[in-house]
Amino acid sequence: MSSEAAKQPSLLETHQNDDDDVQDLQDGDDLSCIPRRQRFLSLSVPPMPWFGLDIGGTLVKLVYFEPSDQAEFPESAISGEIERVKVIHRYLVTNKAYGETGVRDGHLELSNVHINGRQGTIHFIRFPSCRMPNFISLTKSKGLAYMSSTVCATGGGAHKYADIAQMELNVKLHKFDELESLIQGIEFVAKYNPEECYFWANPLDEDACKRVTWPWSGRTSSDPESTVPDGLQYPYLVVNMGSGVSVVAVYGPSNFRRVSGSSIGGGFFHGLCCLLCDCESFDDAIELAAQGDNKKVDKLVRDIYGGDYELFGLPGDTVAASFGHMISPERRKEASKADLARAALVTVTNNIGSIAINCARSEQIDRILFVGNFLRVNPIAAKSLSYAMDYWSGGSKKALFLQHEGYFGAVGCLEKLVVVTELRRQERVANGHATSEESLDEHSLSR
Amino acid sequence: MSSEAAKQPSLLETHQNDDDDVQDLQDGDDLSCIPRRQRFLSLSVPPMPWFGLDIGGTLVKLVYFEPSDQAEFPESAISGEIERVKVIHRYLVTNKAYGETGVRDGHLELSNVHINGRQGTIHFIRFPSCRMPNFISLTKSKGLAYMSSTVCATGGGAHKYADIAQMELNVKLHKFDELESLIQGIEFVAKYNPEECYFWANPLDEDACKRVTWPWSGRTSSDPESTVPDGLQYPYLVVNMGSGVSVVAVYGPSNFRRVSGSSIGGGFFHGLCCLLCDCESFDDAIELAAQGDNKKVDKLVRDIYGGDYELFGLPGDTVAASFGHMISPERRKEASKADLARAALVTVTNNIGSIAINCARSEQIDRILFVGNFLRVNPIAAKSLSYAMDYWSGGSKKALFLQHEGYFGAVGCLEKLVVVTELRRQERVANGHATSEESLDEHSLSR
Repeated sequence: MSSEAAKQPSLLETHQNDDDDVQDLQDGDDLSCIPRRQRFLSLSVPPMPWFGLDIGGTLVKLVYFEPSDQAEFPESAISGEIERVKVIHRYLVTNKAYGETGVRDGHLELSNVHINGRQGTIHFIRFPSCRMPNFISLTKSKGLAYMSSTVCATGGGAHKYADIAQMELNVKLHKFDELESLIQGIEFVAKYNPEECYFWANPLDEDACKRVTWPWSGRTSSDPESTVPDGLQYPYLVVNMGSGVSVVAVYGPSNFRRVSGSSIGGGFFHGLCCLLCDCESFDDAIELAAQGDNKKVDKLVRDIYGGDYELFGLPGDTVAASFGHMISPERRKEASKADLARAALVTVTNNIGSIAINCARSEQIDRILFVGNFLRVNPIAAKSLSYAMDYWSGGSKKALFLQHEGYFGAVGCLEKLVVVTELRRQERVANGHATSEESLDEHSLSR
Repeated sequence: MSSEAAKQPSLLETHQNDDDDVQDLQDGDDLSCIPRRQRFLSLSVPPMPWFGLDIGGTLVKLVYFEPSDQAEFPESAISGEIERVKVIHRYLVTNKAYGETGVRDGHLELSNVHINGRQGTIHFIRFPSCRMPNFISLTKSKGLAYMSSTVCATGGGAHKYADIAQMELNVKLHKFDELESLIQGIEFVAKYNPEECYFWANPLDEDACKRVTWPWSGRTSSDPESTVPDGLQYPYLVVNMGSGVSVVAVYGPSNFRRVSGSSIGGGFFHGLCCLLCDCESFDDAIELAAQGDNKKVDKLVRDIYGGDYELFGLPGDTVAASFGHMISPERRKEASKADLARAALVTVTNNIGSIAINCARSEQIDRILFVGNFLRVNPIAAKSLSYAMDYWSGGSKKALFLQHEGYFGAVGCLEKLVVVTELRRQERVANGHATSEESLDEHSLSR
């Protein structure tokens, strides 16, 4: 996808209740005490709470922005923002689990970030996509929908659930493209978290193996002329491993292109483990796989060649045929559920490793960033990808990982509030609610 | 692999009994009646029967050359060739099945071919690689090993079984590289069989779909200057789908390179069908898959997006996550064994389709040749690959198929008898058994 296509203004829905904050301010309140700059800000900036939502094939990723700067915004008391934030805070931030399936990843909390002119903390929550209807009911019953008429969403479900959200909650989802949100989210989080990016050193050596932070900015460049003090080093490849897989080549902040993909991802692994191993959850499946041995399930190069296939530099322990031993009744008897789960994991990892290295070669890119929830609680996959990238590139290409694994699309959406604010401003100008001077002021406040 | 590497003289074992035909001729026979040219031929040409053997990860492919020109070679009676051929003929050619698992594909028989200066018919036989030890015992018990001390072999098993063949049969396998044999076999068969190559027209339209012969020679070229009357059109891509998958870009008869591969091939499909559907054979698994519906197992783009993902041109019925629905207990109950088998088939086909189209793009090749035993009795895969190549290339790239699907490596080996003959001649010259004049004569007989 070109950056031009990614801008896609046609995907942005018109905001339905775009005057709600204005009405809050018109109910007889005395605005004279609010500095002009802040008052103008509030007129177009969507009211709190702010959410970013990535409705994927398997998981919904929800990020919530909790402001920490309300003291600087006197109108937040008038507009009821403080009260609204308190309600959300009580529900979301004091729990670590929601219902049976929602989970807050407290360890990922990101403080002191700036979004759309405000400072605060981002909270990270996930639940299964099949619970999306329940989420909508919950949102309705808690009155969160009325509070937050502005929801930026991405992922396939942003399209699928747009109608139901409109019907049930009277909220229109502002839909943003998945990959654009992903890249924007990655760059946003990497900017705020210096520990975000890491690699595995000695990935297959149990004793020497360790996670090493990769200070992914200009500091690591060997060419001091090309340093970008607070940015990422372009180009890089993003391999987004969710239910399915997308591979995106990134050449600049808004210059990227989907170069490949695969249907063999987290959904395949989890689905196959449910079928073959009676696993109930992804976490169970990963735990089981960690105890298994894929060599009892897969046919290796050495099973066919009796050793290495030297002519192509294929070591004997390379998998030649995934699940290839399972055509033998004796071998099937010998393979445990853990072995099968491990084979499913290795199938996904090897296939993506191969696609990634081919894409990296044809795009001439050396840094390969693996993200997505397939990597959650899954160091086996990460280590195996690390080894594979190093081995097959002769050490020239590096597998990198990010702490916030699957949340970048949702974070990218949260940042899209800047775009929503600008849209609201344009509407206000068009409707005669704002002057061009005001619009300039507001514009200068959005980052 | 470069063509230079492919020549690999180091892989050729020295022939152990290279004087056996000479001894046959020295046992008091009167050679004066044999024309000099033919007698010289017999001195280095390996004795009948001639076999080519491709010992793959799952199947052994055995091709047998039955001479039809014995009348022209009076010494064939003297050397016992006629008797030996009769024994083999009785056993191999009058049966269509051998033991429980060996099968002769009678419909593939190829007549009037010329190999190493002789004319005859090639017969095509296959059996499971796990029966290789039984095959060796059989060969021993039938006395075939004594008859045929020259066996050219390829595939992983050529390396794995070299020692056992040497030990049990006192036969050294002449080992040839897999991909070199494959390409040589393809070009050999295509030359002799004008109907060899075909494509599927309207592949997904049940009524209009049909196999169409692709006269793969200079006749099809749009540029009359570039025609090669009896050759193939270079470049082409070969996707060899056996237990695992190799992708080879072919630029000329001995100019080719392995550009990619995958462990998700026939072994994966067959193995998974054994585990999930209790299939006993590959043929059972294919038959079951033909009755199933992968949409009950796989998560499609429309299951996630509610429709097409237009920005990337992904139609709604594209598989987004193979086996992705299987994380739901309800969906698992609804999926039949046939649905699971179909999903396994589609997983392999889509993955290879994607790898093939990416390789074809990066190598700028338009003709993509799918071969290997995964395609045997498997029109679903062939039609789906045909549709995929056409769709994703916007009609510029074509999926082509060959009638002799999985036998090209074995045929390529059979043709390697030319190389063996030349090696034997060189040995004879070195040992003072032949003059350089004789060697020239012989050389001119090899193609």
